[in-house]
Amino acid sequence: MAGNQQHKLCMVPGPIEFHEDVLTALSTPSHSHVSPDFIPVFGECFGLLRKLLFTEKGQPFIVAGSGTLGWDMVASNLVEQGEDALVLNSGYFGDSFTACLKTYGAKVTQVHAEIGDRPTIESIHEALSQNTFKIVTITHVDTSTGVLSDIKAISELVHKKSPNTLVVVDGVCSVGCEEIRMDEWGLDVVMSASQKAIGVPPGLSILVASERAIDVFKNRKSPVTSYYASWHNWLPIMNAYEAKRPSYFATPPVQLIYGLHTSLKQLTATSLEARFEQHKTVSDMIKRTFDELGLKMLPKSLDMAAHGMTAAYYPEGIQGLDLLRKMSAHNIVAAGGLHKAIASKYFRIGHMGISVVESERQHIQQVLDALKASLHELGYKKA
Amino acid sequence: MAGNQQHKLCMVPGPIEFHEDVLTALSTPSHSHVSPDFIPVFGECFGLLRKLLFTEKGQPFIVAGSGTLGWDMVASNLVEQGEDALVLNSGYFGDSFTACLKTYGAKVTQVHAEIGDRPTIESIHEALSQNTFKIVTITHVDTSTGVLSDIKAISELVHKKSPNTLVVVDGVCSVGCEEIRMDEWGLDVVMSASQKAIGVPPGLSILVASERAIDVFKNRKSPVTSYYASWHNWLPIMNAYEAKRPSYFATPPVQLIYGLHTSLKQLTATSLEARFEQHKTVSDMIKRTFDELGLKMLPKSLDMAAHGMTAAYYPEGIQGLDLLRKMSAHNIVAAGGLHKAIASKYFRIGHMGISVVESERQHIQQVLDALKASLHELGYKKA
Repeated sequence: MAGNQQHKLCMVPGPIEFHEDVLTALSTPSHSHVSPDFIPVFGECFGLLRKLLFTEKGQPFIVAGSGTLGWDMVASNLVEQGEDALVLNSGYFGDSFTACLKTYGAKVTQVHAEIGDRPTIESIHEALSQNTFKIVTITHVDTSTGVLSDIKAISELVHKKSPNTLVVVDGVCSVGCEEIRMDEWGLDVVMSASQKAIGVPPGLSILVASERAIDVFKNRKSPVTSYYASWHNWLPIMNAYEAKRPSYFATPPVQLIYGLHTSLKQLTATSLEARFEQHKTVSDMIKRTFDELGLKMLPKSLDMAAHGMTAAYYPEGIQGLDLLRKMSAHNIVAAGGLHKAIASKYFRIGHMGISVVESERQHIQQVLDALKASLHELGYKKA
Repeated sequence: MAGNQQHKLCMVPGPIEFHEDVLTALSTPSHSHVSPDFIPVFGECFGLLRKLLFTEKGQPFIVAGSGTLGWDMVASNLVEQGEDALVLNSGYFGDSFTACLKTYGAKVTQVHAEIGDRPTIESIHEALSQNTFKIVTITHVDTSTGVLSDIKAISELVHKKSPNTLVVVDGVCSVGCEEIRMDEWGLDVVMSASQKAIGVPPGLSILVASERAIDVFKNRKSPVTSYYASWHNWLPIMNAYEAKRPSYFATPPVQLIYGLHTSLKQLTATSLEARFEQHKTVSDMIKRTFDELGLKMLPKSLDMAAHGMTAAYYPEGIQGLDLLRKMSAHNIVAAGGLHKAIASKYFRIGHMGISVVESERQHIQQVLDALKASLHELGYKKA
């Protein structure tokens, strides 16, 4: 069995630490992508993803690519040239989604929030009053700031104010660790990637589209303007594998899909509610510790802080790189800042997946111990 | 160390059998994509790819995706709306490349060949006389038919007849097993994927662009119309990693890149010329055996037959699925047909990578033994 020996704990907000069974699945010997061994493995992933997102009829897409490819799928399949999109921007990833939508010809309106904040319900209401949008996009957790959006409340608002608008959730840093009820909350697209709370090495773009979104796609007036991201190419493949039939558009990433299958079975084997609750409990404890250490977090308040990551400013007098290096010397890899405006001023740690739900691994304790020891070694004293 | 135990030999024309060290690399524990451990691993892959393709200054792109994504990179970065592209079509993959180019607005002219044949030098000459093309695309080995194109001769012709036309080679089924001299032969793009003769599980789109191609890209008049395939997004990332600096556009597929690094080091550790020669020798032996068995191969003659795969018609009276099932019972996974016009009438075997260059594994002998035994069990007698 492949192991996790001899490496610094990867406690960034993705890639996360991976279960040994997932790593073992990654080293599955070669299988043809159309072999009777592999087809059911791929085929079962669709139902498991539906279970994870609480959807009966959502259509999963599992494609070789990074999470970024999910934006292309949304922008090229669901929006046509000149149509309006509303981006609720809570950080770096709202900017990038905007750039992607514009590439495919969307007219983008953004509701901005200050760093550490998220667009208010009032500002979203206001934006929805000014125009009719084909889609509204929400970054569930902006990995650059650790800000959590209230996708349930926003979706409710959109459905009330603008019932034909599709609700698109960027769940890269939330699927698997934050509650997401696709059907009940009326979400039309939830897109993610493998390497965060889904618990699989990077390389898979994972997206689930509602029946309504698929209908919008099928009723396009103009052709899809991407080839690799086109659902015309992928939908028949996804349907075939789910029906346990071989099919070919592009060679699926067989070993990553073995890993996905292993991880999704783990994720759905026990209560998802309990999993989300564990992420909350651990996150609360981490944030309390940060508070006690006098570290100022980026999110303006706890109710808008993600439960799978924590972002905090370096304390005064501490050089960021020094802190990250010290933590690394304590065998903990943390991440620097990503939001361009303040990248050198803050750091981030991830707390998702096995690091949270398998407390016997003591990952969280090791991170907090390393943080405290590193700050101490750098002469930090709480102000 | 991850192993290759207990599985049927995957002898399709990709994914191929993977070396144990590559599988072990795939199960590398989690590393941040910007960690000092990972950056040099990724960074070294660029030089290794140049070595594999005999290019001094070609620019590699290594991106999460399937080989198909390479077509999007070519179509969206090198061709602008309404520009002309010439596709030399030797099978299924020429059709698909055409569809991709059209998606991004290219006007496509095709030179077709009959199944098992390739466009003649005369027909290419003729096409080049009728129009000026921005790019000409050649499928080096069409995996659907096993037909090999003479990219050296075609490139020479294109440079002579139409010096500004970019020469684009789809090398998905050739990079690593067929000789490709990018600089000497004047190739502007060679695109490939990880799972064939490069010897790494599927999930990586690998492309190398000449300086001239990068210049054409940089001097575009209109914006690139893909986001995920845009070199504007990827070029700075590739340059940063090669310079051993962290950078971020999308999370790279860390574990697959560990696998790529392992395999490229193996591939380039000994003479590439010897490697290509070994593939020729083994291919010749396989094709002789097919001849002796009375199996008719798809390529019209040996000089246009690929050296990493063999495609042959099922003999009369043998049901295709029966043969594949029998071979599977002998622990050999072979592939059915892919070319839509004749998919049910032929089968394919792959012979690339460790199955060829590590003869002590006896993979080739096992394939031929299984084929002979299966035909015998099905009552086949040479006509």
